[in-house]
Amino acid sequence: MKNDFTKLTWSAIEWQGTHLRLLDQRRLPHEQVYLDIHTVADAAAAITNMVVRGAPAIGVTAAYAAVLAARAAVAAGNNWQSDYAAALDLLAQSRPTAVNLHWAVARMRKLAAAAFAQPVDMLEALEADAKQVHADDIRANQLMGEIGAAILDPAEGIITHCNTGTLATGGYGTALGVVRSGWQRGAFQCVYAGETRPWLQGARLSAWELMRDDIPVRLMADGAGAWLMRTGRVRWVVVGADRVAANGDVANKIGTYSLAVSARQHGLGFMVVAPTSTIDLATPDGSGIPIEMRGADEVLNVAGTRLAPAGADAWNPVFDVTPATLVDVLVTERGALFGPCAAAIAGLFQT
Amino acid sequence: MKNDFTKLTWSAIEWQGTHLRLLDQRRLPHEQVYLDIHTVADAAAAITNMVVRGAPAIGVTAAYAAVLAARAAVAAGNNWQSDYAAALDLLAQSRPTAVNLHWAVARMRKLAAAAFAQPVDMLEALEADAKQVHADDIRANQLMGEIGAAILDPAEGIITHCNTGTLATGGYGTALGVVRSGWQRGAFQCVYAGETRPWLQGARLSAWELMRDDIPVRLMADGAGAWLMRTGRVRWVVVGADRVAANGDVANKIGTYSLAVSARQHGLGFMVVAPTSTIDLATPDGSGIPIEMRGADEVLNVAGTRLAPAGADAWNPVFDVTPATLVDVLVTERGALFGPCAAAIAGLFQT
Repeated sequence: MKNDFTKLTWSAIEWQGTHLRLLDQRRLPHEQVYLDIHTVADAAAAITNMVVRGAPAIGVTAAYAAVLAARAAVAAGNNWQSDYAAALDLLAQSRPTAVNLHWAVARMRKLAAAAFAQPVDMLEALEADAKQVHADDIRANQLMGEIGAAILDPAEGIITHCNTGTLATGGYGTALGVVRSGWQRGAFQCVYAGETRPWLQGARLSAWELMRDDIPVRLMADGAGAWLMRTGRVRWVVVGADRVAANGDVANKIGTYSLAVSARQHGLGFMVVAPTSTIDLATPDGSGIPIEMRGADEVLNVAGTRLAPAGADAWNPVFDVTPATLVDVLVTERGALFGPCAAAIAGLFQT
Repeated sequence: MKNDFTKLTWSAIEWQGTHLRLLDQRRLPHEQVYLDIHTVADAAAAITNMVVRGAPAIGVTAAYAAVLAARAAVAAGNNWQSDYAAALDLLAQSRPTAVNLHWAVARMRKLAAAAFAQPVDMLEALEADAKQVHADDIRANQLMGEIGAAILDPAEGIITHCNTGTLATGGYGTALGVVRSGWQRGAFQCVYAGETRPWLQGARLSAWELMRDDIPVRLMADGAGAWLMRTGRVRWVVVGADRVAANGDVANKIGTYSLAVSARQHGLGFMVVAPTSTIDLATPDGSGIPIEMRGADEVLNVAGTRLAPAGADAWNPVFDVTPATLVDVLVTERGALFGPCAAAIAGLFQT
């Protein structure tokens, strides 16, 4: 059955020609507010502060931000190359774990270094390429949705974690793309979405996206995933990735590793959905992936309400690493790897 | 080293002679408000609404509530036996999973059925027995604290879940009793406490209790437990129980099973701390334990703030069952059972 791609009528990232508009994900699901981003500094801040989040969405945002950086550098009339390089360095530091950020920055750095007759030609080439990054990401997600959905065993439910949908990508989604395509194939009746503490991407964002597409979703406490598996209602856990190492180890939202351990224990399938722009061949394995530690307040508070006692402390790693041995299938836009390993992953890049 | 039991200067359950006072745990940690409970109906509502929670604390509360019920039945001047029986039936229905409730109700039902010269003698005997239930629970917790702490391997941290301390018991705590005794023995430097969504017993109650005793505690998202295990900082997970079946299967707060699966996967010890009043010989195994489902709003909201979109649904089992095979040691006040099984548990009751 063919996907109804015409449903993709919105994006959290909108290029306006003169600037970038981002749907402020901190205010969802209750308010839909867009922020206008005119400078690379504002874009970097939007990434750090999680106006936009999700590895592919960060990559797309960074590509457009590079266009803003190049325009500002040329307009300043100094040595635009050095201004541009400095701006990209700033952008690259906005968050540490998602590799799509570095992938997009490197791509835009390389393109600007090519020979152009005039700076204006370079600016046009950068803008066209940023749009291409965005379009390619959507297309990759649609492909991965079809590839992943064909693998799912039918079951009452499917488990996902964090938000990996249109909000986390250029559009359609990685793991939520597989969920969208799987729903159209009748692979399940209900999505069980972990609420994803501390930032509640599941409760705030995935529930909102899925309800918007009329896909039945039930939220659950993150601690309930293993118990749900034991009830026999699910056959697959489907998640995205912030970075996949060269050997197939997967950095993703905290809580992913726990689901992977439990999925293996219960004989469930564990699927990671990530475009090749999320694979980092320069990182041999998961031990080399920097895990972002965020402030204790994200755990100690929820939605501006203080939960814990005054003076309490928290341990807040916002990602974890799932070893490749626990990944049953890695779905990319170039195909699915069952039992991903270094050789199979390297093969993806040789075609 | 002997425990400093003199630290036990407070309880969440205070018998006032004429009535019962309960620390309202819904308002912790920000407000310390006591509710005066004068009737068995108010006591049942306090249990249902989680003014008081934790299996042993529910048992102690039920014992005192039975005294209130018997007094009211005698004062009404009708057939006090049938009024009393009806009141205990109401009490027994206040929450389904914790077996201490049924244990205390059965104990007070049996005692009232004994031969007394006058109803006033029966009332005095019930009051004395309720106080005994409370005192026995505290003593059992102190014993379990010593027994469990002696088993712990030293490590940087120890993981616990939900709240199993003074707030959850007559005083001192079950798993938090082991934590208290373990801290005095220098078994760890820091307690890692899962925040315990949806009701946040870890963030709101355990953090408050441990900080009150100057025991270092770091909260974490429930999904972070497996990743913490992988860092090598912990050797033991210590939890309480709401009901232990005859074969050693353990019903406890949702998220416990996930920790047990991960602990086994990482070679960590998994300790359940529960007095014999939490063991239900009438339930052969975990499949017979009723798992309370609570309203979706507990997941969709936090502390009165709506998180999820309007119209969202949630799956909210508030307990799960950990099979006995994943329990390395069951600590009771009558001793520790390594690899608990039906025969060993039956043996506890033959002494």
